[in-house]
Amino acid sequence: MADDSADSLVLSHDPNHPANLICELCKLFYNNGWVTGTGGGISIREGDKIFIAPSGVQKERMVPDNMFVMNLPTKEYLRVPKSLKPSACTPLFLAAYTNRNAGACIHTHSQNAVIVSLLYDKVFTIANIEQIKALPKITEPGYFGFFDTLTIPIIENTAHEEDLKDSLEQAILNYPTSTAVLVRRHGIYVWGETVWKAKVYNEAIDYLLELAVKMRQLGIPPDGAIGSEKNTRLV
Amino acid sequence: MADDSADSLVLSHDPNHPANLICELCKLFYNNGWVTGTGGGISIREGDKIFIAPSGVQKERMVPDNMFVMNLPTKEYLRVPKSLKPSACTPLFLAAYTNRNAGACIHTHSQNAVIVSLLYDKVFTIANIEQIKALPKITEPGYFGFFDTLTIPIIENTAHEEDLKDSLEQAILNYPTSTAVLVRRHGIYVWGETVWKAKVYNEAIDYLLELAVKMRQLGIPPDGAIGSEKNTRLV
Amino acid sequence: MADDSADSLVLSHDPNHPANLICELCKLFYNNGWVTGTGGGISIREGDKIFIAPSGVQKERMVPDNMFVMNLPTKEYLRVPKSLKPSACTPLFLAAYTNRNAGACIHTHSQNAVIVSLLYDKVFTIANIEQIKALPKITEPGYFGFFDTLTIPIIENTAHEEDLKDSLEQAILNYPTSTAVLVRRHGIYVWGETVWKAKVYNEAIDYLLELAVKMRQLGIPPDGAIGSEKNTRLV
Amino acid sequence: MADDSADSLVLSHDPNHPANLICELCKLFYNNGWVTGTGGGISIREGDKIFIAPSGVQKERMVPDNMFVMNLPTKEYLRVPKSLKPSACTPLFLAAYTNRNAGACIHTHSQNAVIVSLLYDKVFTIANIEQIKALPKITEPGYFGFFDTLTIPIIENTAHEEDLKDSLEQAILNYPTSTAVLVRRHGIYVWGETVWKAKVYNEAIDYLLELAVKMRQLGIPPDGAIGSEKNTRLV
Repeated sequence: MADDSADSLVLSHDPNHPANLICELCKLFYNNGWVTGTGGGISIREGDKIFIAPSGVQKERMVPDNMFVMNLPTKEYLRVPKSLKPSACTPLFLAAYTNRNAGACIHTHSQNAVIVSLLYDKVFTIANIEQIKALPKITEPGYFGFFDTLTIPIIENTAHEEDLKDSLEQAILNYPTSTAVLVRRHGIYVWGETVWKAKVYNEAIDYLLELAVKMRQLGIPPDGAIGSEKNTRLV
Repeated sequence: MADDSADSLVLSHDPNHPANLICELCKLFYNNGWVTGTGGGISIREGDKIFIAPSGVQKERMVPDNMFVMNLPTKEYLRVPKSLKPSACTPLFLAAYTNRNAGACIHTHSQNAVIVSLLYDKVFTIANIEQIKALPKITEPGYFGFFDTLTIPIIENTAHEEDLKDSLEQAILNYPTSTAVLVRRHGIYVWGETVWKAKVYNEAIDYLLELAVKMRQLGIPPDGAIGSEKNTRLV
Repeated sequence: MADDSADSLVLSHDPNHPANLICELCKLFYNNGWVTGTGGGISIREGDKIFIAPSGVQKERMVPDNMFVMNLPTKEYLRVPKSLKPSACTPLFLAAYTNRNAGACIHTHSQNAVIVSLLYDKVFTIANIEQIKALPKITEPGYFGFFDTLTIPIIENTAHEEDLKDSLEQAILNYPTSTAVLVRRHGIYVWGETVWKAKVYNEAIDYLLELAVKMRQLGIPPDGAIGSEKNTRLV
Repeated sequence: MADDSADSLVLSHDPNHPANLICELCKLFYNNGWVTGTGGGISIREGDKIFIAPSGVQKERMVPDNMFVMNLPTKEYLRVPKSLKPSACTPLFLAAYTNRNAGACIHTHSQNAVIVSLLYDKVFTIANIEQIKALPKITEPGYFGFFDTLTIPIIENTAHEEDLKDSLEQAILNYPTSTAVLVRRHGIYVWGETVWKAKVYNEAIDYLLELAVKMRQLGIPPDGAIGSEKNTRLV
């Protein structure tokens, strides 16, 4: 069980220690408007240990001492910070670790994600944009190409975040080439092999979501063939 | 009455002292575009003492020495900084302290607030968005749920800010579940049990105001049922 | 004439020295997107001396050593930095000093200013917005009220910036209650009694320009009567 | 061939050393949203040596030790950082060095560039905007004037970035007065005589791209005659 000696799990002078990285990255995400109002969260895995930001705190003001640590195989907490509640995202982070062997998982309330979830039905698709090349194919080595179509599933939101687990896992199974799941009227979950890959994927996807909203506003289908932009409603 | 010895009320090495927090938070609000051009203000209560940013100063350049301190029960100033005028928001902050036992009150000129005040009549309403869960129910313990409708009253602006007091108090009484009041063509007042809660509520509300404007522009009613987004004017 | 000893005019440990303030404020303006690509400029007056940022330099990377200093009554340069050209804005800054006894003058290429100059003909007008109260009446003491209409003249751009002088002076004379002049397809000039007032006026005006563009896009006249917003094209 | 002693090529206390500048500028570009998700790149030439940021790394987190160095005349690498891949932009940077004698070349995934590439066919044109004056005429000394039309060619994207080389070189030849080439659905390449000129040109062009998108949305042709704005669709 967790006890005070567990503090050594989160206190380190190494800036790349998961507890330090979670704090650094959440400041960055806050400045992007992705985790304001205590929204969103992040988890990093190191071997069998997973580090998780707590629930309901200001994400840009966390310190390493605020982190939960869990043993991934046993799902037992190795460290529980005083007076803090575990993140309701925890089962969803576990889904990414278990089903995809992820090294980190990011959850944001990005407005681009919410708007896209209002403009698309079951899946978001975008094609023929250079930034797609930042995203991994997953089912085979390497990254998507410029001419590929990127597909991200959209699941329905639930009253309680932890209840998203089943549909998120189903989406992970149904869309084996996606490294993210959008949650309608809520936000997005993005994971990757390492924390840095998860961060890069999240950035690239948010760029594509933002671009897709702009394209839709101009009347240009984001997954349209090259040349379909000639029908923009601005002409 | 206030005298020079009153300086000890605002000078402290503790970064969480209200006079220091007011300065720190106003820099943050300035960078968000909420208090540019000397607009907006903030007040924090500590026991019976309330700390108030002065009128007409650059909010991002304040120092603790600029703060007014008032005794809440007697409404007497305990400290009056030299050459500065009390904020015209003072009666409105007092309304939040008196009627809601608030621990802090934030006032911004957020453009999202002004635009929403132009798009809605008596109240702003939004529903079925995850970020709503950051806001307190107030009349009972706990927070709003995903399926709840958040309602924020809108009052008419007046020539002099202090004249907003009566209608703001009326709105506080009429909308007991709201932790904020919008002022048409002016901005917003948001309060909370503590300064951090007020800050979080203000962030979450501004996120929702921004999202609502985008939804209206897409033809999607922000307080519409889940599925109403299928009628977006972009399709 | 200017010589090397003139360096003492611009080198000071006082952060409020005009040469230091020009550097600090231009970094701020750059971060707002107002002076990117070497655009824009600023001048501060201290008694009979005016300090002017040079032409064609990156405004966010200036150092005090880059500043020109001019004697206002004689228009003679007291200091000319090596290898730098005087700003083409100089005659326009002089117009604000001479005709309005300004303490500082700011010139930006703000996109809000350029867009407003495309949406309005001879003057920009806005009314019934709280932020108007940050702006001075000029022809009488005090500031505009919430119900007042703010009017800023728009002049046509010229091939050479210095050729704007006559029409800018004419606009200053014709619009005695304006502390700014918009230049079509170019940007804005804003001045004030002190550098801080000029900064605050510029911020408040840019806020109003940004808001006016949004209102026009929603079909709401920025200078319309209270209630005219009920005809928004979004309804 | 490159060896460990080559580290001295990139390690310097001089903040203006190319390896240091590349790191500094990429942080700036990242904050502008131009190189998120490892997108984009930059190269600086110093005499016969060119310094190039590596492929697929987070552009805001690079250190000088990450830089490739190439001998321009021989195209031989003087330094190859361990475990990093050369940028696929390298042939395109070389095209700017060879065909235009550039001192630096910047590549971004700016959303303004991508959107403009969707709204225009073979070339982007804008006229009668002050910011145009920041850009060089190239075929003769000096800069464009306010009444000039700025023209930037748009080339089609390819599956592999290096395959852009031929069409980029052709565009450089066909448009001798342009210091940039847009790549459809991808981004932009901008170069200049020095790294600072390249940076300024890139900023000024991005400002003009952003403004052009806004003008098109208002129904105002960015390359229209002065006065054509009177036909804005907002009236």
